[in-house]
Amino acid sequence: MPESTEGLKTRFLSLAPNGDADSLRSLLEVMPDQDAAEAFEDLEKNAQSALLKRLTSDDFEDMLPHLPAPLAEVVLQHFPQSEQREALEEMWDDELADFLQDVPEENRDRYINLLDEETKETTEELLSYPETSAGGRMTTAFAAINATMTVREAIASLNEQREDTEILARIYVLDTDQRVVGKVRLRDLTFSPRSTHVADVMQPEPVAVNAQDDQEEAANMMLKYDMMVLPVVDDEKKLLGVITHDDAMEILQEESTEDLEMQSGIAGTPDELGYLETPVLSHLRRRFVWVLGLAVLAISSGYVLVSFEHFLDGRFLLALYLPMVVAAGGNTGAQAATSIIRAMSLGEFEPSDYIAAVWKELRVGLCIGITAGLWIALLTPVVIVLLPGTADSISAYQLASIAALALVAQITTSTILGAALPILANTLNQDPAVVASPAITTVVDVTGLFIYFGIAKVILGM
Amino acid sequence: MPESTEGLKTRFLSLAPNGDADSLRSLLEVMPDQDAAEAFEDLEKNAQSALLKRLTSDDFEDMLPHLPAPLAEVVLQHFPQSEQREALEEMWDDELADFLQDVPEENRDRYINLLDEETKETTEELLSYPETSAGGRMTTAFAAINATMTVREAIASLNEQREDTEILARIYVLDTDQRVVGKVRLRDLTFSPRSTHVADVMQPEPVAVNAQDDQEEAANMMLKYDMMVLPVVDDEKKLLGVITHDDAMEILQEESTEDLEMQSGIAGTPDELGYLETPVLSHLRRRFVWVLGLAVLAISSGYVLVSFEHFLDGRFLLALYLPMVVAAGGNTGAQAATSIIRAMSLGEFEPSDYIAAVWKELRVGLCIGITAGLWIALLTPVVIVLLPGTADSISAYQLASIAALALVAQITTSTILGAALPILANTLNQDPAVVASPAITTVVDVTGLFIYFGIAKVILGM
Repeated sequence: MPESTEGLKTRFLSLAPNGDADSLRSLLEVMPDQDAAEAFEDLEKNAQSALLKRLTSDDFEDMLPHLPAPLAEVVLQHFPQSEQREALEEMWDDELADFLQDVPEENRDRYINLLDEETKETTEELLSYPETSAGGRMTTAFAAINATMTVREAIASLNEQREDTEILARIYVLDTDQRVVGKVRLRDLTFSPRSTHVADVMQPEPVAVNAQDDQEEAANMMLKYDMMVLPVVDDEKKLLGVITHDDAMEILQEESTEDLEMQSGIAGTPDELGYLETPVLSHLRRRFVWVLGLAVLAISSGYVLVSFEHFLDGRFLLALYLPMVVAAGGNTGAQAATSIIRAMSLGEFEPSDYIAAVWKELRVGLCIGITAGLWIALLTPVVIVLLPGTADSISAYQLASIAALALVAQITTSTILGAALPILANTLNQDPAVVASPAITTVVDVTGLFIYFGIAKVILGM
Repeated sequence: MPESTEGLKTRFLSLAPNGDADSLRSLLEVMPDQDAAEAFEDLEKNAQSALLKRLTSDDFEDMLPHLPAPLAEVVLQHFPQSEQREALEEMWDDELADFLQDVPEENRDRYINLLDEETKETTEELLSYPETSAGGRMTTAFAAINATMTVREAIASLNEQREDTEILARIYVLDTDQRVVGKVRLRDLTFSPRSTHVADVMQPEPVAVNAQDDQEEAANMMLKYDMMVLPVVDDEKKLLGVITHDDAMEILQEESTEDLEMQSGIAGTPDELGYLETPVLSHLRRRFVWVLGLAVLAISSGYVLVSFEHFLDGRFLLALYLPMVVAAGGNTGAQAATSIIRAMSLGEFEPSDYIAAVWKELRVGLCIGITAGLWIALLTPVVIVLLPGTADSISAYQLASIAALALVAQITTSTILGAALPILANTLNQDPAVVASPAITTVVDVTGLFIYFGIAKVILGM
């Protein structure tokens, strides 16, 4: 039985301060690289330096792509230039591009100049795509053969390519213009007679993503079609690279983090460092814009409240349901926005479906509003009994009617707004998630006050 | 160049109403199964029936796993029992289990009884695990060989297994107790001399998930270690099955949907049908509980507001910043909760880090509160000028001080609460996401009112 990954990590951490180089090296060889990187990151700064002195650059090569960029730079810069070059060239081309995207610009050029011509060229091509595009996530280390080859020739060709190929599970069959005409699995070659032609064992591959498309589109294709590898092509359909299953998972994870953070008003991309390691000021920077923006917006609610305030004189009971009606708008608006955004990101909507979607939310909103309104109206006698007796010009019956009608109006309005805003954002080519939760809540706070006081005026006959 | 997937789907939709069976069949053969299923779903009910009559059960076999369960049942039940059996047995075991989990119980037993003994046994084993556990997501169709085999024997053995094996990219090497001692890639066998022993080309595989563990844990392992296939083992470390990369992507997608929906107060699992196809009442069912629960909770804010209401007499200006201070709590509480939940789900925290996390949020909250408080205090002269002149006993200076201090107190409190509640939920073995956004917002609405009026009382010397 192999030792568990936790066991290996614990052993590494206890060996790191004083263990001899050979024991550490043989431990690093059996540890997954990701755990080695995590363990190294967990060490105190001076324990890290001590380890850098005791081990060679070879020992660090495999963990480099899994370290946060600043720490990877510390490791690299401990070793002479020739070893830096070697370590950088050992990385997969997409790992190298990711690392270079995360380092300060002046260092980036220095690292690029260390590379041999071929690696340099590939790296610069990958860096020319936006970081979050399909091109920015692809690797050029794919396996390709020609349709005219026999299985024997194909296996021989793959044997030559395999050191430079990240994944052999999907092998692309190309025409002379480098366009994908099909794909084979290694198993199709391994278990076929050696004289068969590749064209006879290949399968069609109609799915590909353009290098300029967003990484989310690539990940969604791989999710939909259960793909292990997705071809990335240019406008002429020439194969440029592939996105592999592990990158697809990372993209899905990043996008879901982004959506969650947008929904709670956290801006920008997370720090390379973990939560606890990220300085307070970096947390502040990502959160403060939304907090201040929403606070300033909320002053408009304040204006409305001030202008209706005299109205509460002698009608104390009205205040009882004010927070509830306002809050119900924020909650139902956020629900509607999330439902629409989810359906959009699963590719369920064509623009022609937008009217249908808003119409559905209108009905959902009305149903929720009416049911909630009825419940609260029925609860009103109980709620009032619990209140310390105050003389008031409003009857329980009036209060219940105001609350019920206001809930119906506020919930319906907020639901429609919650559905319409992401659709509007999408139509304007903005990320629909950016208008989600906090912005909607602030908008419907204002409408809620108008609705509540407006209905109260009508019911109380003013 | 192969035709694009959209092109194929459009052609299918136009051919479906009147096209002959042979053209449809040859189109279905080149279309990805997922697109075929989507296209079939998009057809009107009578076009679906017409197609069922014109084609055979063989033509539908491949799209079945990609149809929502209710529609898959319609397709199945159109054909005689013997063809139903065949179609069910053609599915991968995990697809079959997923389908059976989604159909009404009475039909489930009927389908299971159709299966041959071996499939029945496997299916019942898979169904015995909770739907969202690693065991509930695994397939038993993995490839395994023995360490004592030569490469030649291994290839021969795999050739026999390959029809029953979902993925040959990772092949497990087992000991006599069915425990994993290593793994090989197909390439390691294909490119090795046939007389080499498997033990000499295999690599260690220290990572595995227990069948009882949550599916999210499995997906996170695969994400961390860039795995294509993850072994699923029992308590004795015996290999039971594997989770493949496509399932890992689906799990990540499901969990992110779940998190987003929880954060906006949507309960339960999404309907099998798409957003537009889901009936209004199903949408209502998933959203109403939260809306009503939060509305009832919000009545407590109402009680607090009523009890402080007399306090606003002659101090109209106080109402100006009331919504802002209350809302700032909800926003910053949600930010803190999201940050903590994200770090938790990335596995960044040990329980020993909880104090450090709350301490970090306390500092972040203080910084945001002080900065926001200063900004609002500075803006106050401008804000007041815009207000229609009201005689008031509060000066701009007093109002600015109240707002600034209240923001510091409210934002700091809410940030700590937002961090502490998910940690508490996690400690109690609850999903931390369940206490996110809407619940926190409602709680800090109440604290916000107390803080605002409390500070006003002190500043105004009452």
